[in-house]
Amino acid sequence: MSYLTDGKLVIAGAAGMIGSNMAQTAIMMRLSSNVCLYDPIAAPLEGVAEEMFHCGFDDVNITFTSNIEEALRGAQYIVSSGGAARGAGMTREDLLKGNAEIAAQLGKDIRALCPDVKHVVVIFNPADITGLITLLYSGLRPSQLTTLAALDSTRLQSELGKHFKVLRNRITNCRTYGGHGEQMAVFASTAAVDGKPLRDLIGTSALTNEDWARIKEKVIQGGKNIINLRGRSSFQSPSFLSLEMVRAVMGGAPFRWPVGAWVNQGQFSNIVMAMETKLTPQGAEVCQVTGTEDEQKDLAQSYRHLCDLRDEVIKMGLIPEIGEWPKLNPNLR
Amino acid sequence: MSYLTDGKLVIAGAAGMIGSNMAQTAIMMRLSSNVCLYDPIAAPLEGVAEEMFHCGFDDVNITFTSNIEEALRGAQYIVSSGGAARGAGMTREDLLKGNAEIAAQLGKDIRALCPDVKHVVVIFNPADITGLITLLYSGLRPSQLTTLAALDSTRLQSELGKHFKVLRNRITNCRTYGGHGEQMAVFASTAAVDGKPLRDLIGTSALTNEDWARIKEKVIQGGKNIINLRGRSSFQSPSFLSLEMVRAVMGGAPFRWPVGAWVNQGQFSNIVMAMETKLTPQGAEVCQVTGTEDEQKDLAQSYRHLCDLRDEVIKMGLIPEIGEWPKLNPNLR
Repeated sequence: MSYLTDGKLVIAGAAGMIGSNMAQTAIMMRLSSNVCLYDPIAAPLEGVAEEMFHCGFDDVNITFTSNIEEALRGAQYIVSSGGAARGAGMTREDLLKGNAEIAAQLGKDIRALCPDVKHVVVIFNPADITGLITLLYSGLRPSQLTTLAALDSTRLQSELGKHFKVLRNRITNCRTYGGHGEQMAVFASTAAVDGKPLRDLIGTSALTNEDWARIKEKVIQGGKNIINLRGRSSFQSPSFLSLEMVRAVMGGAPFRWPVGAWVNQGQFSNIVMAMETKLTPQGAEVCQVTGTEDEQKDLAQSYRHLCDLRDEVIKMGLIPEIGEWPKLNPNLR
Repeated sequence: MSYLTDGKLVIAGAAGMIGSNMAQTAIMMRLSSNVCLYDPIAAPLEGVAEEMFHCGFDDVNITFTSNIEEALRGAQYIVSSGGAARGAGMTREDLLKGNAEIAAQLGKDIRALCPDVKHVVVIFNPADITGLITLLYSGLRPSQLTTLAALDSTRLQSELGKHFKVLRNRITNCRTYGGHGEQMAVFASTAAVDGKPLRDLIGTSALTNEDWARIKEKVIQGGKNIINLRGRSSFQSPSFLSLEMVRAVMGGAPFRWPVGAWVNQGQFSNIVMAMETKLTPQGAEVCQVTGTEDEQKDLAQSYRHLCDLRDEVIKMGLIPEIGEWPKLNPNLR
């Protein structure tokens, strides 16, 4: 069985829980015959590489390094989970400063070491912001960088599946856009249960308004719930979904969920957020989203929250004022 | 894409590191559309199930339970990592008593709850012994129970790949038999490097006797090395390889490595140990192994070590004297 590409796939943060899962998942998905594991922490990184060798993955060139130059030289695809993990009780925002700095450095490194990279997926929190920062400093085209934004949508599918007691593939086209967790905009109007529009079910005995409010709350708390249950942040689902994104940009199976991407049209400008997006070897193409009036209002509010977060990073001096962005990355005009 | 079977696959120990990886790996391998996660520890188990839902694995029925009866009822395939993990500094033998008791209970539960199970893979340490104990108490036919025994062989392939600086698929047919780690018997005579018999290379400048001794030592220490590097026991490779075994007995791709299986012929009797084995939907079929005189001597010694371990368990009163075994499991005559 062949690999989708021979192009170098770099997994950054490969010593961590998400990253080590990504190593295995990428190889099992047969994404690239050339996988480079990068992490600044050398010993556990080597341990992860050893595990991959011991799996008997013998037709894939697995390299590992703590040298960012060695890692990024010749990289065609990068997926980075290389931020700090969200601990119990922490909000996404708590992570903001540290991870913003890591993202800025990642962008600079990409610009210096692999300006010809095809696509970069950023998944460390808050991914909307770290992705934006990486995009700014990397000089890449907006279509070349995406962020993990699917988890709220898969969690919505999961909770609806539980509620209706059906296999989850009968809950179709679940979509949340904008930010994540408490700031996401749930688009009930896109989803269907056994082909019946979800919107027609909300407020009926099948799905009372109280049920629906409870389900949305469970989606919002989905990440915290994993921490409470397992004593660690989710790592399997972010790993799997982000590599499904990589697979799509490599020309493999289409990605079925929303994607975090650069949006700079209509009412939304200078932001990375979860949107309806096509991922192809040409990169990410953001599609128009249309929901009910309330949903659009929720999305606008979610967008404003992300703008606040972005502006906070500007105030911290980690990225310049928006007016200066095209100087930093001419692709962001 | 369809699943290999709709038969119920039970992953026991699913809240642990190996088990939670097995949940994801089994679904990614598309083994069964009906996966039941079992673990006595309820909260992290639910967390693992949530992660699987959040991956968007939506066409597979994923159930989870801490009730062994609910888990095993109707089980067609079981893979169990449900023992204690080997901590830093512990030998496999330290784990013996606790895990032997868990294995005895697993066997009794299989006999009581799912006597029609097709195949059981036991992977908790020391797997040669826990598998033997489970087989004894389960009443299954020897062909229906196997243990994970491939890791020494994949580690040998890995170390030879490093030494010869070639992709690991050019190191073919690496084989260790008998016990594991310090007690394994390395069969250099089966392996080849780029088609050249490994035996012809040992003692030449390409692979001096010192190199070869060092490589064997690294294979023996492969598991400890992971603990030293990562601060935790290996979990990705045991998970992946044991599910490749399950895949083979489900009728999927053949398993390429040695398997731990019941051996009761020729000079080896009343033992479970790593052997050359065919895994098919009819179960495990142990094949004759022939090596050099020294290799056969090593294997005999490895076997004797396992017999000592087995006899220790008999002395502990956890399994009866060998003469009584056929009463406990008539398939073991």
